Amino acid sequence: MTSTMDRAEIEELFQKLARAHADHDADAIVEAYAPDAVIFDLAPPLGSRGMNRDNVAAWLAGWVGPIQIDARDVSLTVDGDLAFVSALNRMRGRQGGEDQDLWYRRTMCLQKISGRAQIVCDHSSVPFYMDGSYRAAVDLKP
Amino acid sequence: MTSTMDRAEIEELFQKLARAHADHDADAIVEAYAPDAVIFDLAPPLGSRGMNRDNVAAWLAGWVGPIQIDARDVSLTVDGDLAFVSALNRMRGRQGGEDQDLWYRRTMCLQKISGRAQIVCDHSSVPFYMDGSYRAAVDLKP
Repeated sequence: MTSTMDRAEIEELFQKLARAHADHDADAIVEAYAPDAVIFDLAPPLGSRGMNRDNVAAWLAGWVGPIQIDARDVSLTVDGDLAFVSALNRMRGRQGGEDQDLWYRRTMCLQKISGRAQIVCDHSSVPFYMDGSYRAAVDLKP
Repeated sequence: MTSTMDRAEIEELFQKLARAHADHDADAIVEAYAPDAVIFDLAPPLGSRGMNRDNVAAWLAGWVGPIQIDARDVSLTVDGDLAFVSALNRMRGRQGGEDQDLWYRRTMCLQKISGRAQIVCDHSSVPFYMDGSYRAAVDLKP
């Protein structure tokens, strides 16, 4: 099966996203997503559709200085007009007067739409402890 | 782009998975996954590779009677040898002497390998409250 989706294009998209978080560039973040992308975020609600520019800008404004997002155990699969990537992400920076350092899981699904790779599903999460505490496992490291 | 991945085959796979949970059939569950599938589960660790039959059987044994898994807001995308699906899942049954009823987000990525659609990534999660409590949001409904 010939791939119309280009690995280099996807890696460039992820690099743009990383730069946009470092630079607090809400427009560049929103641009990476299809308008009706499925968003399963770290915070409630369960799910939503599309990245809202005002929400992204408000979230970015809560951080002082760059938001650094690194990835490991990256698994990228590409075929036809689709791609998906799963990885463990680490997000670091200063937010709400505190140093943040969180490892979480991320699955992104991408589709070539109008000739451009766009994120159509973005699922970020941490697991939770099933010891009766229902605590979010924000202290895990790979 | 011609699709070699068949929507009907994927829907059949999901129906088999639902039946396997109702019937506590560990083999049928494991069979749906590629041996090195990326697993981001509701419980820790952050991530693992492959579905271990003994772990699946032990988890099933913790439930009395069928485990019922329903889905809504299902979004299925298919092209080439790949497919991905995102949905809100509801899992119900009796576990540990308690009635369970949990809504969670699920993203599954599938790939046609050796002529058969197999799950290569399965990401299940609930969000967590960012009010300082770090509580897993197990009480959300769509």
